[in-house]
Amino acid sequence: MMCRFVAYLGQAIPLARVVSEPEHSLVIQSYRPVEMTSGVVNADGFGVGWYNRMLDPTPCVYTNITPIWSDRNLPGLSKHIASGCIFANVRSATPGQTVDQSNCQPFGYKQFLFMHNGYVENFRGTLMRRMRQALHDEYYGAIGGTTDSEHIFALFLNSLHGQPATAQTMSNALNVTIRQLHAWAEPLRLHVALNVAVTNGECLVVSRFSTSAPAPSLYYHQNSALFPKATVVASERLSPQMQWSAVPENSIMAFTDDLRTQSAPVFTS
Amino acid sequence: MMCRFVAYLGQAIPLARVVSEPEHSLVIQSYRPVEMTSGVVNADGFGVGWYNRMLDPTPCVYTNITPIWSDRNLPGLSKHIASGCIFANVRSATPGQTVDQSNCQPFGYKQFLFMHNGYVENFRGTLMRRMRQALHDEYYGAIGGTTDSEHIFALFLNSLHGQPATAQTMSNALNVTIRQLHAWAEPLRLHVALNVAVTNGECLVVSRFSTSAPAPSLYYHQNSALFPKATVVASERLSPQMQWSAVPENSIMAFTDDLRTQSAPVFTS
Amino acid sequence: MMCRFVAYLGQAIPLARVVSEPEHSLVIQSYRPVEMTSGVVNADGFGVGWYNRMLDPTPCVYTNITPIWSDRNLPGLSKHIASGCIFANVRSATPGQTVDQSNCQPFGYKQFLFMHNGYVENFRGTLMRRMRQALHDEYYGAIGGTTDSEHIFALFLNSLHGQPATAQTMSNALNVTIRQLHAWAEPLRLHVALNVAVTNGECLVVSRFSTSAPAPSLYYHQNSALFPKATVVASERLSPQMQWSAVPENSIMAFTDDLRTQSAPVFTS
Amino acid sequence: MMCRFVAYLGQAIPLARVVSEPEHSLVIQSYRPVEMTSGVVNADGFGVGWYNRMLDPTPCVYTNITPIWSDRNLPGLSKHIASGCIFANVRSATPGQTVDQSNCQPFGYKQFLFMHNGYVENFRGTLMRRMRQALHDEYYGAIGGTTDSEHIFALFLNSLHGQPATAQTMSNALNVTIRQLHAWAEPLRLHVALNVAVTNGECLVVSRFSTSAPAPSLYYHQNSALFPKATVVASERLSPQMQWSAVPENSIMAFTDDLRTQSAPVFTS
Repeated sequence: MMCRFVAYLGQAIPLARVVSEPEHSLVIQSYRPVEMTSGVVNADGFGVGWYNRMLDPTPCVYTNITPIWSDRNLPGLSKHIASGCIFANVRSATPGQTVDQSNCQPFGYKQFLFMHNGYVENFRGTLMRRMRQALHDEYYGAIGGTTDSEHIFALFLNSLHGQPATAQTMSNALNVTIRQLHAWAEPLRLHVALNVAVTNGECLVVSRFSTSAPAPSLYYHQNSALFPKATVVASERLSPQMQWSAVPENSIMAFTDDLRTQSAPVFTS
Repeated sequence: MMCRFVAYLGQAIPLARVVSEPEHSLVIQSYRPVEMTSGVVNADGFGVGWYNRMLDPTPCVYTNITPIWSDRNLPGLSKHIASGCIFANVRSATPGQTVDQSNCQPFGYKQFLFMHNGYVENFRGTLMRRMRQALHDEYYGAIGGTTDSEHIFALFLNSLHGQPATAQTMSNALNVTIRQLHAWAEPLRLHVALNVAVTNGECLVVSRFSTSAPAPSLYYHQNSALFPKATVVASERLSPQMQWSAVPENSIMAFTDDLRTQSAPVFTS
Repeated sequence: MMCRFVAYLGQAIPLARVVSEPEHSLVIQSYRPVEMTSGVVNADGFGVGWYNRMLDPTPCVYTNITPIWSDRNLPGLSKHIASGCIFANVRSATPGQTVDQSNCQPFGYKQFLFMHNGYVENFRGTLMRRMRQALHDEYYGAIGGTTDSEHIFALFLNSLHGQPATAQTMSNALNVTIRQLHAWAEPLRLHVALNVAVTNGECLVVSRFSTSAPAPSLYYHQNSALFPKATVVASERLSPQMQWSAVPENSIMAFTDDLRTQSAPVFTS
Repeated sequence: MMCRFVAYLGQAIPLARVVSEPEHSLVIQSYRPVEMTSGVVNADGFGVGWYNRMLDPTPCVYTNITPIWSDRNLPGLSKHIASGCIFANVRSATPGQTVDQSNCQPFGYKQFLFMHNGYVENFRGTLMRRMRQALHDEYYGAIGGTTDSEHIFALFLNSLHGQPATAQTMSNALNVTIRQLHAWAEPLRLHVALNVAVTNGECLVVSRFSTSAPAPSLYYHQNSALFPKATVVASERLSPQMQWSAVPENSIMAFTDDLRTQSAPVFTS
């Protein structure tokens, strides 16, 4: 599905700082996006995930099927909750995908949060069955919705299976996942777009990848006056007049909370 | 609130014929309107009302707080239900108005259906209290939401009170309502826009009125190949290449199911 | 999942006649059921399906995730819509099953409506994967939710695949479905309960089956003063003082709109 | 409306401690209440309010129109959010009151949270109009729903108007509110039940009052092993085997976070 997302890693801030306060916030991107390659608005549900590790190692996820701007609870929640690791997403459902809460991102599983902006072409009729067959029972049984995005998350978990979660292992698992999807898609001449963000609450790994150029937009931004001691990754620049860097196409980047950054091309890990 | 609406009176057709099938249908007007004077999308709920007079003289109203395009039930309902009198509305909530189902139009009361596209400027802080005070207990107690639109409906019912509902009495009552609102608004220099459609299932009365030109767009269309033996009134033309007439600004028009039409300026009934 | 359901086949009546008007209507069964073997209320969503074959051969399905008693649209719809074939269901989600609209019954597919009251024990961890693997791509790709019920429907469609839908073929396909599930469940010592209703709009086929006695309750009732020239099948008697017959345990019954009835034990078709 | 509620004041705890973890938690009271004098279940929406005064002096309120047990976000939120002042409510709508999010309690206004369990008999047809007429514009314009409860809150705010909020002024304002309602109800022989809880985040004031004995149940509990250094007030005892005291009928009690308690009969402040 085409969506817009934001990921934040750094010192604790109220959720509103990335969700609603920036000049070109996610709320505004939901009804007036400027770099969408398909779709018009992102009003088919939304989600925000964050960590409060003093109380629990797993993330908290808040989703709703309404447009993000009309949710009654979000303004209060995003003003009253602060976190050092925040994922937020607004959804534009592709035709044939239903607007169910189970299909709202980010998805959480154990200590992980995951979001995907992109698509597997004609997912249900093409790779769904093959992707499911590749999964361990644990991840197969955990799928709660019907989106390509959630299945990509399951495939990522499958690739990471049995390893400790670090920036390195998560980057590798994401690389393996993209490689696998590409290998399945290529002989069928299917288009796939795989802008992904995944975190364990400590480090942030993102990919920008598409079989057809240009890949959907993805930017990052670090340690600015607006977001000191932090990394922000976003589908569209939250503050157009500030300095944002494009995530290189067909690459994976990893960010840690000491602001260290690694990047690598997809496929050659 | 700014909205887009469609009203249909004529031979029975499936709801889909006005809601989703036209080239510039209400569904499309919800995410890509072309004549909105404020707001961007109409995704804060919607409603469809219709009559099945063989079973019941009152209208049936179906509303939901989601965007019209993501409602799961509407495609089926609008394919399986046919009616000779259909009202449909997509909503763009103005700031300060909440997205509750009680605030979705059209509103039904006894045999009437009512929709309003426009606004009373800063409604809660200005005319709400005065409008409520003017109401008979019957209409006061029937208000279920908090919109200016529903209060305008109550004022209309108040004006019609005790009279049989005909094209003439309904036109007069709408005229009285607009005149009253204008009289209250003027000394406060409040802007009001009052594009209204109201029906008793037999005749259709609409107004196009605004204190500041131009009034929100409103068109009508009669007895065409697409809608034989019928009148359609719509905020935007459902089929741009067909012939639609603008409802004159600051006027009231009445349509009956024999395709007769009356029009009169507001204020001089 | 444990649910309560009602199926109606006969002359056209308003939906309200089975949904809300009977003394022990489905609405009342949702908050005060009297024969539930597990669960307390049936308030995790509901659905109503019906046919309007003059407009379309496929059924119309209306579902919502709220309790049936608090849905704002249903009272109007069920008063204004009449049909000769009506399915209605109130849901009690079993733990681990989510309250999504995709999981609300009845399910529709092409000309069929389907409802299931019962469960496959620990469905996601036991038979889900095996059931999916047995499906043709057509039915695999059509599954939109995560319930055992919808998977049972897919297995039924798989069993009927390529045959014309008649009372006989549908009864057989349901028999094959139950036999298959039983064969998979038995070596794993899994409990399954399979009270099912399925229709193509012309005939009604139901099963009452459980691996552990007693099977969930299921009654039928024909051609009475309350429902002349009609068959009604319901989880609980809609009118306790009238004559209802129990569907025999571990059997399948088929009803046609000329009030003919066939019944057969499960397994020996 | 008849509801069940819980109020907590003391050291910070996760919301789950009062919402879902106790043996007879609010979640369980929603589907299996034991001291309801009318109604069967409390499944017409719910709400939780709390303070995070390090970020904001006003409360955060989370509401939804689904039953509390089927809300997808609440389990995560109530595990990941801790607070020293928590209000939670499950609703049983009385006939004629709609299930809108605007009608879910607790209600927040500036630094206050408010909940009401009880009713004003036939509210819309009796005291609504009179209550509204008594309000300052500020509170009149702030009413967003249609319940007696929210109007009682507005009347309370009206009574407190211009005074600093302390245990004493809030108790007095609640006393004045009840007295006023009683004075209006008595000549009309209307029944009213006014179990109320209100807080400014620092002190907790509750009333138990009804014109017809017995008043709806209300208990309090202080400084126990389960809730050390805290006061809990609840419609039903959260832990039946622990020591709970009944709030005396027709009285007002005030609790501060140093566990001091004051109580006074209604009417003689």
